[in-house]
Amino acid sequence: NSYFKIAVLPGDGIGPEVVGESIKILDAVAEVFKCNFQFSYGLMGAEAIFKTGDPLPDETLKICKDSDAVLFGAIGDPVFDNNPEAKVRPEQGLLKLRKELGLYANIRPLKTYASLIDKSPLKREIIEGTDIQIFRELVSGIYFGEKFTDPDGKYAYDVCKYSTEEIIPIAHMAFREAEKRKKKLTLIDKANVLDTSRLWRKTCQKIASQYPDVQLDYLFVDNAAMQLILNPKQFDVILTENMFGDIISDEASVIGGSIGLLPSASIGEENALFEPIHGSYPQAKGKGIANPVASILSTAMMLDYLELPEAAEKLRRAVEHAIENRYVTVDLNSEQHYSTSEVGSFIADYI
Amino acid sequence: NSYFKIAVLPGDGIGPEVVGESIKILDAVAEVFKCNFQFSYGLMGAEAIFKTGDPLPDETLKICKDSDAVLFGAIGDPVFDNNPEAKVRPEQGLLKLRKELGLYANIRPLKTYASLIDKSPLKREIIEGTDIQIFRELVSGIYFGEKFTDPDGKYAYDVCKYSTEEIIPIAHMAFREAEKRKKKLTLIDKANVLDTSRLWRKTCQKIASQYPDVQLDYLFVDNAAMQLILNPKQFDVILTENMFGDIISDEASVIGGSIGLLPSASIGEENALFEPIHGSYPQAKGKGIANPVASILSTAMMLDYLELPEAAEKLRRAVEHAIENRYVTVDLNSEQHYSTSEVGSFIADYI
Ligand SMILES: CC(C)[C@H](C(=O)O)[C@@H](O)C(=O)O
Ligand SMILES: CC(C)[C@H](C(=O)O)[C@@H](O)C(=O)O
Repeated sequence: NSYFKIAVLPGDGIGPEVVGESIKILDAVAEVFKCNFQFSYGLMGAEAIFKTGDPLPDETLKICKDSDAVLFGAIGDPVFDNNPEAKVRPEQGLLKLRKELGLYANIRPLKTYASLIDKSPLKREIIEGTDIQIFRELVSGIYFGEKFTDPDGKYAYDVCKYSTEEIIPIAHMAFREAEKRKKKLTLIDKANVLDTSRLWRKTCQKIASQYPDVQLDYLFVDNAAMQLILNPKQFDVILTENMFGDIISDEASVIGGSIGLLPSASIGEENALFEPIHGSYPQAKGKGIANPVASILSTAMMLDYLELPEAAEKLRRAVEHAIENRYVTVDLNSEQHYSTSEVGSFIADYI
Repeated sequence: NSYFKIAVLPGDGIGPEVVGESIKILDAVAEVFKCNFQFSYGLMGAEAIFKTGDPLPDETLKICKDSDAVLFGAIGDPVFDNNPEAKVRPEQGLLKLRKELGLYANIRPLKTYASLIDKSPLKREIIEGTDIQIFRELVSGIYFGEKFTDPDGKYAYDVCKYSTEEIIPIAHMAFREAEKRKKKLTLIDKANVLDTSRLWRKTCQKIASQYPDVQLDYLFVDNAAMQLILNPKQFDVILTENMFGDIISDEASVIGGSIGLLPSASIGEENALFEPIHGSYPQAKGKGIANPVASILSTAMMLDYLELPEAAEKLRRAVEHAIENRYVTVDLNSEQHYSTSEVGSFIADYI
């Protein structure tokens, strides 16, 4: 199969700009690797609320369900962030999309780039050679459990619930990845306090016997938050539940010193979505200064998912080439820098 | 009042050694500042389980309730950490003690020491001058909500619940502290996803009008986990719920590069407990290498609480004196170092 239906959700802020560069690159990939991408655009996030009142219109959901993969930009707008009373919010669209598409595994690879290491807030000797793959459960836990606020506003609760069925598939995914890598899997939880964490531990313990080559470690989330900064090189593959994954993966994103480079994939049984881990940066919108690399590397993850590994490899090399030659946006080099679209074109040309 | 009843719970691992140095120092304080400390010892943690089967024997709880303040070492033992099936665990004792004593506010001051700045994994220019005070809610939230694991082990849940009554007292405490400092309070939550977080936000928003001098900011916990490493100096006072506080405050403890220095206070209406933030480090037990400073600085926080501010000040100066003169344990200087008890005596002598 060399024909792919791609749903494109540019979203808010700098989303449209960075996704635009990914499209440019997919056009180059199509030409060189003799394949075909058909793009269908959908509204999503604040943009969608302004136009339709709904952060995830049915039309958008349909486009995504019909697609081979979803390319997503970013959502979020200060109008909603600063108003805790807002009933409809961009984030609801993203959470609903994850749930509806069954995107249970959020995968974030973290690497350092030799030429950018000095941009990190951490010291060179701490981070040099860091290579971590994080698996975060994405469609359950406290995000999707029952929520309640009493009408008088006197109390509220959120339920964190997990079933073994929700843990098993992502655990296998993480074990398989560890097998291909340094064979070390770290489960991050709070098993000294939470029942759900103990369920994660027991479930992973059982699965471990099917992967005798992989060493399974456990770390309490508070300790993990320290270890990630004290010694990130100790980690290979990390597995964790939804809320801990949200915190830990954002924390880990500071290691390389450049959040504008970090991609992610959210994978389900039948659908997959690819997005930069950075947000919508409304302040940078329309200025041509946004770094397109995170979106472009998310596109490389998409190419892997679509079983176009050569194209994915080529794209990663193109990005490395751009970075090593300092053909980068202002966030990575304040002296000599290029626009979002110049960087995108440079990478597309290399392909 | 110059007579104080102190409950002493040395606990596990290096707990007894570091608490021993705090007692030495309180003896010196008693002499110089003409006051009296009466010490009552209680069993707690793994030690208590081995001897009585209960991580918090009633006898210990009674001693604590009768005291003016509790001096606590550390708990935890690998025997329990490596066994997710253990029914009785040291941590249960600590959680029960917090609840029974109503210790709703865990307070952690974080500062960098000029002579130790290069020990941090973070770069000097990022951390120099960091001065943060963290207020973590300690007796509610997902730690103490309903928990359930179904008998077949197919699913489990933990409930995170908060009432406004649980939020208001610690919020006032944090606002008052901010008023005395740089007048900036940051509430860390996940209000874009959780009902309980929205309750925290609304409650703090209301209280804010009583502290017109204090600027109240909000930060989502994932973003906060990044900002703490990217730019810790932006923070003054941080306020957050129990689980986020556990993660965020341990993460923040890496900033100074020496977790062996960090104290904490847990405060309630009628009781208070003081403990180092480090754990029981079973590997170091009995070797005389543990750093007693975190326990000693916790003792300084206790002296403040007992309204002995001059003694507290003197003690802090003594600690600074020891650190600036490199009279420290091996964790802070691998070339020339002193034992736990030598450092304690040096500080006691200064007083
Ligand atoms: C926008 C928000 C709901 C989302 C999350 O918390 O999952 C984001 O932080 C992320 O990590 O993708
Ligand atoms: C031991 C554990 C239950 C405890 C907690 O999570 O509160 C500890 O990590 C702490 O921060 O004091």
